[in-house]
Amino acid sequence: MTYYQQISKIRGLVLDIDGVLTDNTILVTDQGEFLRSMNVRDGYAIKRALDAGIKIAVISGGKSFGSKKRLEIIGISDVYLGVEDKLPVLKQVLQNWSLSPEDIAYMGDDIMDISCMKYVGLACAPADAVPETLEIADYISPRKGGDTCVRDIIEKILQAKQLW
Amino acid sequence: MTYYQQISKIRGLVLDIDGVLTDNTILVTDQGEFLRSMNVRDGYAIKRALDAGIKIAVISGGKSFGSKKRLEIIGISDVYLGVEDKLPVLKQVLQNWSLSPEDIAYMGDDIMDISCMKYVGLACAPADAVPETLEIADYISPRKGGDTCVRDIIEKILQAKQLW
Amino acid sequence: MTYYQQISKIRGLVLDIDGVLTDNTILVTDQGEFLRSMNVRDGYAIKRALDAGIKIAVISGGKSFGSKKRLEIIGISDVYLGVEDKLPVLKQVLQNWSLSPEDIAYMGDDIMDISCMKYVGLACAPADAVPETLEIADYISPRKGGDTCVRDIIEKILQAKQLW
Amino acid sequence: MTYYQQISKIRGLVLDIDGVLTDNTILVTDQGEFLRSMNVRDGYAIKRALDAGIKIAVISGGKSFGSKKRLEIIGISDVYLGVEDKLPVLKQVLQNWSLSPEDIAYMGDDIMDISCMKYVGLACAPADAVPETLEIADYISPRKGGDTCVRDIIEKILQAKQLW
Repeated sequence: MTYYQQISKIRGLVLDIDGVLTDNTILVTDQGEFLRSMNVRDGYAIKRALDAGIKIAVISGGKSFGSKKRLEIIGISDVYLGVEDKLPVLKQVLQNWSLSPEDIAYMGDDIMDISCMKYVGLACAPADAVPETLEIADYISPRKGGDTCVRDIIEKILQAKQLW
Repeated sequence: MTYYQQISKIRGLVLDIDGVLTDNTILVTDQGEFLRSMNVRDGYAIKRALDAGIKIAVISGGKSFGSKKRLEIIGISDVYLGVEDKLPVLKQVLQNWSLSPEDIAYMGDDIMDISCMKYVGLACAPADAVPETLEIADYISPRKGGDTCVRDIIEKILQAKQLW
Repeated sequence: MTYYQQISKIRGLVLDIDGVLTDNTILVTDQGEFLRSMNVRDGYAIKRALDAGIKIAVISGGKSFGSKKRLEIIGISDVYLGVEDKLPVLKQVLQNWSLSPEDIAYMGDDIMDISCMKYVGLACAPADAVPETLEIADYISPRKGGDTCVRDIIEKILQAKQLW
Repeated sequence: MTYYQQISKIRGLVLDIDGVLTDNTILVTDQGEFLRSMNVRDGYAIKRALDAGIKIAVISGGKSFGSKKRLEIIGISDVYLGVEDKLPVLKQVLQNWSLSPEDIAYMGDDIMDISCMKYVGLACAPADAVPETLEIADYISPRKGGDTCVRDIIEKILQAKQLW
């Protein structure tokens, strides 16, 4: 199946936080908070995708409570933090959505994302993902993590449905 | 009308925040604050423009209370946050100022800014605006959002009036 | 007098904060704080210069209390914040130090710094200073504001004295 | 001894914070906190190295309590802050580990790191280290400080042991 055939079938999108919705940096406060920076343009695209009926979930190895709050405000209710092994959570998400792996795009940037990327129909990575992840990606965004790679994949998904 | 004829007529400037006064990133705290970074050089230019009698307003889809405080300290009293549909607010601002659309420059970077950009006399965009916005801009600044694109357009406006 | 003759005579250094010790961005919090980012390598160089007997003062148009605390920890006691007109403060600093303008290097990046730059013996600017400032600089650092332009000028001053 | 011979012998890694685990910038708050940004990918690599039995310590001239908390969560118990003279601390660390200098890689970016770099078997520096440090480095990472230079050296160490 070609990339264009794959992307036109996508009904759900699952995202990593660090390195995808962020540029992988965390600001460390003396109180022990780890703060992330997110991109407003990704947020706009996520809203558009949700309005278009695309299911979106976020699975992160980190514990970014601020990111979760922002993602919930944007409209994502499925935000899983502190996940050591991402694949079982992904499988549960798909079951909740009643969708199968080939309906799903997953965007990740690092080694912990590989099992999920291999499981779904469309494995996506930002331009600055690690080599191990780039090697198995079906689609490599020209945009980096935190620099609108999420908007890029959402535009591609919605354009394939004539919805962008 | 040429760009030079347009810019010499400008009496008011309306700005977006995210992607214009900032680089589109927001720092997310665990308390649910979304913090923006602004550029000191833009602030200096805004003061110069206000001193020269240019009217300035800011209309943002986001809710950046810190940005509002800073903009008010600089001297902008017309700061509108959390605006879903920007054009009606822009029209109200112009009515308050007793200015017509052709007197106004608007700088925006994303799709939500298009209706305002089409309404005013001089549609401006930072170098890194989205393609949909760049396509309809009368003036594309060589500077990016958060990296003095606002100073650039203010310098152009004041230079046309021999005031910079 | 050549640049090399000028720099070997320097006994005092006066610095702007925004755009020199920082990259001109300020992080705006909802509490109305404006936070700056400074560079550890500049801090190390400032300590070395103070140890070598170079006088250092900082004059800023902004009010960055955090920057002042950090600069005081590094060892700079002369930190002037919220200064609208910098030249009178510079003259007072020189009087306190019993130094004359030709003994002084001043590094600034924007229009508010021009009067001080014209007054001193060695006018310095970071690589990304505004054109009006670059035009009158005796020395333009290859480094940008916030990206070790201060370390660069201090290395040059101490190297001329065989102290780096 | 060649670089490949050196790196295959490494059993311990000692890191600087500023300019190695960070990009040398510190965010200065009005409360006098100095906040650092760290990279999630470095954190993942550190966990992998610890799991593989590599000893890791961090020695910093600065006092970054937030960094210490994060590094301890990742699993590094040897974090020394506010160290003026790093070599005696490094020697104590090696004694605690019962390792000799030739077993150790040290990564530093500035002049304060030189004595430690000369002491160990494998002196490492990020791509953007100062010239004085680059000159004496056995290995210069292609990555900058705060931009995964730590992950780079850890990958090299573990690859030499067939553990990455």
